[in-house]
Amino acid sequence: MRKHAFVFLNAAIVIAAFIVFRAQAQERTEVVFPNIKGYKTLACDLHTHTVFSDGVVWPTVRVREAWRNGLDVLSITDHLEYLPHKDDVRPEFNRPYEIAKPEADNLHLMLIRGVEITRDEPHGHFNAIFLEDCNPINTPEQKDAVRLANEQGAFVFWNHPEWKRKDGKAWCGIQQEYHDLGWMHGLEVFNARSYYKNAHQWALDNDLTLMGTTDIHSPIDEAYDYARGEHRTMTLVFVEAETPEAVKEALFAKRTAVFANNTLVAREEWAAPLFEAAVKLQTTDISLKGKNAFFVPVHNHSSASYELEANGRVRGVSFPGALRLPAGKTVMMRLQGGGGTTSGQEKIVLPYRVKNILIAPDTYLEIAFELNVTFCE
Amino acid sequence: MRKHAFVFLNAAIVIAAFIVFRAQAQERTEVVFPNIKGYKTLACDLHTHTVFSDGVVWPTVRVREAWRNGLDVLSITDHLEYLPHKDDVRPEFNRPYEIAKPEADNLHLMLIRGVEITRDEPHGHFNAIFLEDCNPINTPEQKDAVRLANEQGAFVFWNHPEWKRKDGKAWCGIQQEYHDLGWMHGLEVFNARSYYKNAHQWALDNDLTLMGTTDIHSPIDEAYDYARGEHRTMTLVFVEAETPEAVKEALFAKRTAVFANNTLVAREEWAAPLFEAAVKLQTTDISLKGKNAFFVPVHNHSSASYELEANGRVRGVSFPGALRLPAGKTVMMRLQGGGGTTSGQEKIVLPYRVKNILIAPDTYLEIAFELNVTFCE
Amino acid sequence: MRKHAFVFLNAAIVIAAFIVFRAQAQERTEVVFPNIKGYKTLACDLHTHTVFSDGVVWPTVRVREAWRNGLDVLSITDHLEYLPHKDDVRPEFNRPYEIAKPEADNLHLMLIRGVEITRDEPHGHFNAIFLEDCNPINTPEQKDAVRLANEQGAFVFWNHPEWKRKDGKAWCGIQQEYHDLGWMHGLEVFNARSYYKNAHQWALDNDLTLMGTTDIHSPIDEAYDYARGEHRTMTLVFVEAETPEAVKEALFAKRTAVFANNTLVAREEWAAPLFEAAVKLQTTDISLKGKNAFFVPVHNHSSASYELEANGRVRGVSFPGALRLPAGKTVMMRLQGGGGTTSGQEKIVLPYRVKNILIAPDTYLEIAFELNVTFCE
Amino acid sequence: MRKHAFVFLNAAIVIAAFIVFRAQAQERTEVVFPNIKGYKTLACDLHTHTVFSDGVVWPTVRVREAWRNGLDVLSITDHLEYLPHKDDVRPEFNRPYEIAKPEADNLHLMLIRGVEITRDEPHGHFNAIFLEDCNPINTPEQKDAVRLANEQGAFVFWNHPEWKRKDGKAWCGIQQEYHDLGWMHGLEVFNARSYYKNAHQWALDNDLTLMGTTDIHSPIDEAYDYARGEHRTMTLVFVEAETPEAVKEALFAKRTAVFANNTLVAREEWAAPLFEAAVKLQTTDISLKGKNAFFVPVHNHSSASYELEANGRVRGVSFPGALRLPAGKTVMMRLQGGGGTTSGQEKIVLPYRVKNILIAPDTYLEIAFELNVTFCE
Repeated sequence: MRKHAFVFLNAAIVIAAFIVFRAQAQERTEVVFPNIKGYKTLACDLHTHTVFSDGVVWPTVRVREAWRNGLDVLSITDHLEYLPHKDDVRPEFNRPYEIAKPEADNLHLMLIRGVEITRDEPHGHFNAIFLEDCNPINTPEQKDAVRLANEQGAFVFWNHPEWKRKDGKAWCGIQQEYHDLGWMHGLEVFNARSYYKNAHQWALDNDLTLMGTTDIHSPIDEAYDYARGEHRTMTLVFVEAETPEAVKEALFAKRTAVFANNTLVAREEWAAPLFEAAVKLQTTDISLKGKNAFFVPVHNHSSASYELEANGRVRGVSFPGALRLPAGKTVMMRLQGGGGTTSGQEKIVLPYRVKNILIAPDTYLEIAFELNVTFCE
Repeated sequence: MRKHAFVFLNAAIVIAAFIVFRAQAQERTEVVFPNIKGYKTLACDLHTHTVFSDGVVWPTVRVREAWRNGLDVLSITDHLEYLPHKDDVRPEFNRPYEIAKPEADNLHLMLIRGVEITRDEPHGHFNAIFLEDCNPINTPEQKDAVRLANEQGAFVFWNHPEWKRKDGKAWCGIQQEYHDLGWMHGLEVFNARSYYKNAHQWALDNDLTLMGTTDIHSPIDEAYDYARGEHRTMTLVFVEAETPEAVKEALFAKRTAVFANNTLVAREEWAAPLFEAAVKLQTTDISLKGKNAFFVPVHNHSSASYELEANGRVRGVSFPGALRLPAGKTVMMRLQGGGGTTSGQEKIVLPYRVKNILIAPDTYLEIAFELNVTFCE
Repeated sequence: MRKHAFVFLNAAIVIAAFIVFRAQAQERTEVVFPNIKGYKTLACDLHTHTVFSDGVVWPTVRVREAWRNGLDVLSITDHLEYLPHKDDVRPEFNRPYEIAKPEADNLHLMLIRGVEITRDEPHGHFNAIFLEDCNPINTPEQKDAVRLANEQGAFVFWNHPEWKRKDGKAWCGIQQEYHDLGWMHGLEVFNARSYYKNAHQWALDNDLTLMGTTDIHSPIDEAYDYARGEHRTMTLVFVEAETPEAVKEALFAKRTAVFANNTLVAREEWAAPLFEAAVKLQTTDISLKGKNAFFVPVHNHSSASYELEANGRVRGVSFPGALRLPAGKTVMMRLQGGGGTTSGQEKIVLPYRVKNILIAPDTYLEIAFELNVTFCE
Repeated sequence: MRKHAFVFLNAAIVIAAFIVFRAQAQERTEVVFPNIKGYKTLACDLHTHTVFSDGVVWPTVRVREAWRNGLDVLSITDHLEYLPHKDDVRPEFNRPYEIAKPEADNLHLMLIRGVEITRDEPHGHFNAIFLEDCNPINTPEQKDAVRLANEQGAFVFWNHPEWKRKDGKAWCGIQQEYHDLGWMHGLEVFNARSYYKNAHQWALDNDLTLMGTTDIHSPIDEAYDYARGEHRTMTLVFVEAETPEAVKEALFAKRTAVFANNTLVAREEWAAPLFEAAVKLQTTDISLKGKNAFFVPVHNHSSASYELEANGRVRGVSFPGALRLPAGKTVMMRLQGGGGTTSGQEKIVLPYRVKNILIAPDTYLEIAFELNVTFCE
């Protein structure tokens, strides 16, 4: 059998060559959002699965997908309790992290150790990330699991809160208890493509971090078609430094924005600067002569396309009732004078609401474009 | 622990709902090639890997990819000897097939049981497909493995023959011996994107079946970008019926064409009718008046785009020196009279070679378009 | 100056070579809809503009666009009365046709001579197509124009009926008069991307032909992004032969379906066979065992994607509440038994409405899939 | 007839509304190249046609295309002598500029007045841009045309020098004479997709400005498929200010780079900083332990994709022989130590040639990546 072992070794070397070739052939599409308020903006997916629970890919696949999709931070969070592959894949809760880590290091991707605590309703599923050791979290009693995660200093968030209970009553005694104990720090307002509106309100009412994740089980390209302009769900985290500690600090401090289905869900204090730093008028000094039109170029330097709707009127100036700002593109905003006999300079403010930035349930970010207008007869 | 088990059960039901939703959202892009000579044309990938050897996806992923990519037949052929995941995934050589089979049945995809016999050079790697049981093939002695596969009636082909030996001398004593014993029935002229030119000649010289496979280890979308018009490597098999037995019969009978990198590699007896049935002139009666042009629409009803190059001249008629026939599209072939004083009818033949249909190494399929020309003064 | 003239001639020859090269490089994407009820289905755009009125392209551009977009029939219908380029382009109402005709002949595209009669509201705009001579239609009196077009045997249709009057009262005395006189044969239910719902009802109430056109003024690629899956607005006409006479006959006989924004608008007698001939279940014999699922492949062989919504229930079988059938693709319809103890065979009918096929305002085509089910315990 | 005239007026207003709507719907894809050496980089197409000579679009179309394609500067240069539409379109050489100017002003696009002087070989075609008045240039004698353009201060360049004479002898007496007189300031090394290699050398030998243009006659989307990643041919001009005067000064000063077919043609003094400012290693401090790999992310912030080929070796470090840097993406450069016993720090330089940046015929730009390597045992 010696020779046999030798065969394995050779094969290992050769096949490694294959894998390296593919790694080089791949490319990364950056997620583009501005840094704001002195913080760096990181793109994170903190809820994903592999063959070690009910996912269908090897942990290294998650790393490479994340890198190609422009993420900065990834957590693999396999179920502790739901292990449909356990006859074939040995259950070992730290293995996904251990297998993925060297690939993450190669690709300079930050990998966070995590698990999904998966219990029946009304408890539901919770992710615990920034763990030191996943094994102790696997306990018979559900509350022990959440307690032990907290004792490891984990950031704990409630997954897809309204997935199985859509009557607006998913927040039950157990969630209240966790919240009172300080054991639950965030919740998913977006899981994959599903938005949880009541959960959004609970997060605001209870001062929880807004999270968005893919919860991806399949290869990512089965779920999100980048070629058609789709993007994976993610949480933008505004950090002081590119370290796991800083990401954790930012999550506990609720400095996040969720980006899913080309929609941003964030507290206004993060949503407003994010929009303002991304969208720029390329001219703010305009002149309107009679009823002539003037076109203002508007550039959107971000990975989100924004849908704007006028939110008021301005005397003597007409401007678009709706404005679409495609990601990475420049469009023209057409202004037109009223043809009055007014002349002189004036500062005007065009009020819009951004229909795909939610600062609360059913509440859109309101923004304003300031312009200096010279009216000519 | 009773309750615990109950939790698992519930979770299983719920998560199944997730998976079903995704299956419905998916779509299949048919591989379009004509049926020829009374045979049905099936698209097959007979060399793929999963986490059960050195691949990185679960067996069901291979099935769903194959279905989405328009394949009719799939074989998962994990390595018997190279098992880098064996500390985490229990080696069990029939498991990939068993796990994939229900999904294949759901998607009406034909799944063939197979393995890859993976030995050091000069032996190299062989695929054995149409096995009843993969376990017995895992033997210490390499020749035993190939012998036992044959004893199960397997179709055995040599994988990437020139992968590690590019000097044209990869065909060694062991291959000759297998060939003499009737144990080697085909070889890969295309493995993923690599074409093996010497191997192509060996296949013709030794009457072996021409094979093309992806040998895919990663999720398929990492390797082939369908959005940019790429396609996975495959073998077209011309069968009497859509059954495993009929596929096996066709493979032994060498009724195949390899489709890779938008190139077809096939014996002329299959290449010629494949082209002729796919590419149609929509008008064959044309009139040429003086030096005026006449445009003939040419429609290509297949998934391959063809690159044609004129292969001769026709007196009194000029026609395109190069002609590109994109997959599924219609283009115009521009003919022009010489302006001679000839009048009357004539049958002409426009000779072309198809630069991306190889009937032998460096030898392209030659075709002819027949037209009835009326010359007018 | 002789030599000078010679220079022009040479330049003409050389530049022609350029144009020919480009023609060959172009490709046609066929519009795919089935022939139905013994008629051939032609794709037609019968309302387009050029620099000869307020369009911005030369007539040959319209021909080449139409060919590339898979149309069979085109009419250029420049305004008689609105001529903003008249200082630079000589008004001559037959010229667009005359200039476009040789290119249309080259590309085997049927070109129909037409004009747009462009008068103020409440009259509005009318297209007159199948004219012999456009010049006589250019009269001071608006009714004379429509009368003279009719005297030439033209097919006359009302363009964008509700464009300037959205209160549902655009049908005024003049339209009633034209209708009573038999001078108005159709109306546009779709002009470019705008659907006119009241007009749709007027067409049904008054037995008028349903028309859809691009009314394109710009280069077509500025208005329809084929790369993102968009398509130009068109009228499908069901003809007895591929001749102008047959197209005219079919239009007068109201054998049309409008295809715009991936929506079909047609009378049920054409909508139903169009859907039925395009969408096929690839298996109709299914077996349901307990609560197991069975997947039925559904192939859509047409250029429209269909959006289906379940329109009822079937005892003992659950089936998708919504089903998307992408153009040219195959998807899976998942059926599931109720787990009853029934066994035996049964014919079932799955009722759906097609949300993007309108047979009347707010009224969708209803279809049914028939299946033979074998229930097993 | 009074009422009739009134109708026209109304129609004009309504149709204008249509056009405005479309303008808003459009989007601009920026051409991304860095500003270098204190100059701003402008994207220019200085050779285009309209219906006023042998083009097939209205002048405003050229403006809108240029804007959508991310250009900063456009010149419409219709032929003076080749006027195939002259029976329909009144020849008036300043009209294309006059018609296009208001649209250019709306879109903040710089429009340059120009013409193409179009004479027989060996003279060939010359563009004269930055004219005050195009009419005087239309003279019977070809040399007069070029002289008069120069007297207006025009920048004059030779179009597609080798289009009709491919034997390397197109530079004849007349070109030499223009050059000696200082009347010819640049030449096209790229016209549309054609590269003129000898002309490239002539430009270098005779100190002429390198130009690249589309010479577009059709709608731009017929010639360049942006959806498939193609881009229109253009000249990058490095200017001191965004004014016509500054563009003219830069052209006379030969501060250009030609971008065509994803290839850059430029003098090394512009090519080198253009590449260096666009392509950045995201890490330059690396550590190599034994034979382990280290991956360096390389980001390309420009609209060109670069193809690199290693141009030498580095002792003790292996690095990719070929490296593709897709436009706007990040890829990984894999380095590997030689496994020697060396330890300590070292500055290394990886030498590459950029296969699609030509600084002279057959001569590629050579670049180097500097890295600080820490070797560990």
